[in-house]
Amino acid sequence: MSLNVSGSLREIERYIKTVPDFPRAGISFKDITPLIESGQALHAAVDALAKAVESVEFDRIISAEARGFVLGTALAYRTRKGLILARKPNKLPRARISATYDLEYGTDVLEVHADAIPPGSRILVTDDLLATGGTARAMCELVEKAGGTVACAAFLIELSYLEGRQRLAPYPVVSLLDYNDPNA
Amino acid sequence: MSLNVSGSLREIERYIKTVPDFPRAGISFKDITPLIESGQALHAAVDALAKAVESVEFDRIISAEARGFVLGTALAYRTRKGLILARKPNKLPRARISATYDLEYGTDVLEVHADAIPPGSRILVTDDLLATGGTARAMCELVEKAGGTVACAAFLIELSYLEGRQRLAPYPVVSLLDYNDPNA
Repeated sequence: MSLNVSGSLREIERYIKTVPDFPRAGISFKDITPLIESGQALHAAVDALAKAVESVEFDRIISAEARGFVLGTALAYRTRKGLILARKPNKLPRARISATYDLEYGTDVLEVHADAIPPGSRILVTDDLLATGGTARAMCELVEKAGGTVACAAFLIELSYLEGRQRLAPYPVVSLLDYNDPNA
Repeated sequence: MSLNVSGSLREIERYIKTVPDFPRAGISFKDITPLIESGQALHAAVDALAKAVESVEFDRIISAEARGFVLGTALAYRTRKGLILARKPNKLPRARISATYDLEYGTDVLEVHADAIPPGSRILVTDDLLATGGTARAMCELVEKAGGTVACAAFLIELSYLEGRQRLAPYPVVSLLDYNDPNA
C-alpha cells in the first residue's frame, strides 16, 4: 500500500479492512465501512479527496450506485458542487441515457437522467474504489454521450495492479491510497 | 406542501420534481435528482437537515441503500459523525444483522455489519423520503437489535398522508418538506 497525497492518510488507511475471498474466492475485498462509520476518518477522507482535486475545474460530480454515492455526496457538499446520480436500470423516473460496462465480477448498466449533464459542462468522476475501471469508464461514457467533458477521475482507493487507470486514459486520474499487491 | 423549518426551504422545494405514475400507476414519485444536481440546493438541504437535528444528541447516522446514502453521507460530513450503511442483502462482507420490511411497493431486507452499531450508542436514522415508514422502521429495528438507541428519525421529505410518522412512534421524527396531498 502506498500513499499518494500525505501522511495523514496513514490514519485513514487503518480504517480499511481487507476481507479475503469476497464476493468470491480469490478476490481481496476492501471494506471501507469502518472508515465511513468513523466521523473523524470520513471527514479526513473527504477533505483529502477535495484537496487532491482542488486544482481541477469542474461543474458537477458524478458517482455510481450505491457505494459511490457515499463519498460522492460528501465531496459534493464539501466542494459546493452538485452530484449526478449514475443509477442501476429503472431507478430514475425521467428520460435517461445509459452505458453498459464490465464489472470486476459480472456486467451491468448505469443510467443518468438525460438532463443531468449539461452539454459543455466539466464533470468530476468519482468512486470509492478504482479496480478494473469498468464502472468509472461507464460514467465517462455517460458524460461523453451527454456532450460533457470528463475533468478528472478521483478515487479513495486504487488497485493499480488491475490497471484501471490505463482504461480511463486520456483522462487524468487521482487516487489517495494505492494497493499494488493483489494478495495484500 | 408545507414547510416545517424555514422559508429558505421554498428554494429547495423548487428543485423537487413530481413524476406521476412512477414506479407504477397511482404513485406520485418525488424526484430529488435536480436538487442533488444543484450544488447550492444540495448544500442548503443538508444544512437545513443539520439545523433541524442540532438539539439531538447522537453518535452515528444510519441510512439505507441507495438513495438514502446521498443525504446520509453529506449530513455525516456536515455534523462530523460517522455513517452506518444499511445495505441490500449480500453486499456487506463481514458478520451482519438483518431486518425484513415492507416497501411502499414490495418487500425487502436491509443489513448492517454486526459491529456497526455499538451497544448503547445513540443513532440518527435518516432517509430522503418518509412514505409508509417501512425502510425507516427497519433501520430502527437494526439499531434496537444491536443494542443501540434511536435518537431521532430525520427526512428531507415526508408524505404525511401515508402516516409513516405514526409507524415510527415513539421515536421523534423530523422532516423538512411535507406533501400532505396524494395527488400533489
